[in-house]
Amino acid sequence: MASEKPLAAVTCTAPVNIAVIKYWGKRDEELVLPINSSLSVTLHQDQLKTTTTAVISKDFTEDRIWLNGREEDVGQPRLQACLREIRRLARKRRNAWDGDPLRSSLSCKVHVASLNNFPTAAGLASSAAGYACLAYTLARVYGVESDLSEVARRGSGSACRSLYGGFVEWQMGEQTDGKDSVARQVAPESHWPELRVLILVVSAEKKLTGSTVGMRTSVETSPLLRFRAESLVPARMAEMTRCIQERDFPGFAQLTMKDSNQFHATCLDTFPPISYLNAVSWRIIHLVHRFNTHHGSTKVAYTFDAGPNAVIFTLDDTVAEFVAAVKHSFPPGSNGDAFLKGLQVRPAPLSAELQAALAMEPTIPGGVKYIIATQVGPGPQILDNPCAHLLGPDGLPKPAA
Amino acid sequence: MASEKPLAAVTCTAPVNIAVIKYWGKRDEELVLPINSSLSVTLHQDQLKTTTTAVISKDFTEDRIWLNGREEDVGQPRLQACLREIRRLARKRRNAWDGDPLRSSLSCKVHVASLNNFPTAAGLASSAAGYACLAYTLARVYGVESDLSEVARRGSGSACRSLYGGFVEWQMGEQTDGKDSVARQVAPESHWPELRVLILVVSAEKKLTGSTVGMRTSVETSPLLRFRAESLVPARMAEMTRCIQERDFPGFAQLTMKDSNQFHATCLDTFPPISYLNAVSWRIIHLVHRFNTHHGSTKVAYTFDAGPNAVIFTLDDTVAEFVAAVKHSFPPGSNGDAFLKGLQVRPAPLSAELQAALAMEPTIPGGVKYIIATQVGPGPQILDNPCAHLLGPDGLPKPAA
Repeated sequence: MASEKPLAAVTCTAPVNIAVIKYWGKRDEELVLPINSSLSVTLHQDQLKTTTTAVISKDFTEDRIWLNGREEDVGQPRLQACLREIRRLARKRRNAWDGDPLRSSLSCKVHVASLNNFPTAAGLASSAAGYACLAYTLARVYGVESDLSEVARRGSGSACRSLYGGFVEWQMGEQTDGKDSVARQVAPESHWPELRVLILVVSAEKKLTGSTVGMRTSVETSPLLRFRAESLVPARMAEMTRCIQERDFPGFAQLTMKDSNQFHATCLDTFPPISYLNAVSWRIIHLVHRFNTHHGSTKVAYTFDAGPNAVIFTLDDTVAEFVAAVKHSFPPGSNGDAFLKGLQVRPAPLSAELQAALAMEPTIPGGVKYIIATQVGPGPQILDNPCAHLLGPDGLPKPAA
Repeated sequence: MASEKPLAAVTCTAPVNIAVIKYWGKRDEELVLPINSSLSVTLHQDQLKTTTTAVISKDFTEDRIWLNGREEDVGQPRLQACLREIRRLARKRRNAWDGDPLRSSLSCKVHVASLNNFPTAAGLASSAAGYACLAYTLARVYGVESDLSEVARRGSGSACRSLYGGFVEWQMGEQTDGKDSVARQVAPESHWPELRVLILVVSAEKKLTGSTVGMRTSVETSPLLRFRAESLVPARMAEMTRCIQERDFPGFAQLTMKDSNQFHATCLDTFPPISYLNAVSWRIIHLVHRFNTHHGSTKVAYTFDAGPNAVIFTLDDTVAEFVAAVKHSFPPGSNGDAFLKGLQVRPAPLSAELQAALAMEPTIPGGVKYIIATQVGPGPQILDNPCAHLLGPDGLPKPAA
């Protein structure tokens, strides 16, 4: 390969988001249009992020992509849809502004490398951060400045929500071409500084139904899902927006739990039924309800996506006590020191009253593998430092440090 | 206590029933009126039954009741409702026919003893058979011949379905006084002789939410339950009736599974959520779907009530192979000989193809404690043999044999 200087190299990062009003089911598989709107919290990239480098060069003979150091098939449909869409937007812009120095970039092939700072094995949905980062990075390298919802969405529906920080809604839209199915920020990351997020990583025993296949089966077979999407979610979106705007934690927490449960209920109503919650997930659910009952108010909420991991929302004044309760109910395995990752949480004692209220014998160690403590965070970022590039001047992945 | 001859002593038996369209939720707690109609299969009393003796005597100074040999508080509201209702019906009849020799019985106190031929610890809902038997026996001892739906229902809603053999619907009715909320036979026990029922008794780890409290919480908090009851069950009742009348096993089986799943979905949509299915229940669900997929047709169905036990429906030509599959996936514990109770099932080999299709490693022994093989059976029976009485001439429980 010739070592001519690339036309452009850009590296960006993007966050993971956790839905509190769940997205489950597409009305258009090709365009990735959902059957209902959804709302999510963007997590801080200090703890969880995807980093993506895109390089374009006249020397490249084909598009190529590396994920976490392994080259993947660039021909997969979702990836192709993203590339096609970003190039369409770029072409549109160039036509509007003829003197663009990057005009020639459109005929160039692109190399992409992407890396998560969290283990894929943790079972955290990485596709949202991944496709948001891809869309954001490709937009920078191709000079696209329009709304990126569609580019990200075509990769993975919930990815459009990772394009913004803070609290983000994905409006389902009404148009058949999906032009109004876009993500919008409901409140910025600075809006609710006391909010904390704990990810309880749970051991999964078996392979799960993938969310693409799962939601398709649900749309085809669950009458409860259709009713939820059409008749319940609109009011829930409005109520959740109000709770966030007013920083009403009990309201936010209860609706978050109810919506997680309702999503899993529609999975059970699917035929054959789908189960993402396992015995550890259920113990966490019971733990949260007992914790709240003990306090006489809703101080903690859980939400579960298409897997057994729990994401916990609480406020900064409650984090330490809740972590102590988790440690009591799920004694750390051999990783006692590394059980708690991310934000610092001061050790707190577990009162005898709370311990009695939890009324759960400690389970076998390791049911919860570890906890990641994090908070609400900003949207995608551009990294200016050339050292951050995951691809070298030759357009190939740099050797791992 | 004086040893005067009792005025009357009657002993009857009544069956367990398993709902294939589920009852969950009351519109009237006092009158036990459901929010939707339901449909059940009456199980054969050779395997599962309640036996009840009722004795009335002028010597008795108070109503008393013994369940499985232990005296219980006769003052509990459901029991009182049954007694009040049967005496009301008796009074109505006496007034219509003045020369009744049992007229004086109305002023007598009653002693009742009831016994299940299956362990309560098995977690099989015994209240339906118990209250059906109570209603049926009290009716005989007090000479009541009218419809007993209300008497049984006041004890336990689903008990009214145990008043008939074969296939039974409980019509929800429309009247506020509940007079049209009655059980009716859809087809007699002779209608579908090939149908077989397997009860897979599963170890429960923890105390469950009782169904009375559970359904009340669901009615109050689950929007999906309301929708199911109002908009989905009516069509399901009609479809299930058709499947039974036409002996359409695949249709019957699929709707049975879908309705069980939907009931459990509404439990998950309850707040706080209720979970009756455990990890073993879910393994049974997967086993059934893989078994059917292997055969390319729906040959087996599962249904679960408010607990982890599975009730399996299949046809006589499939029983042996399915039992072999269960034994493969859930190796019997120390009770190898007593693992299969009830109807004889000939041992059958498990083909390598089916074993591969199940794709489940054998789990730890004892996940399924044992299997009860049974079939569709008749409604309540009167036992003529005085030896069958559970109470002696003194009105007290006979010593256990």
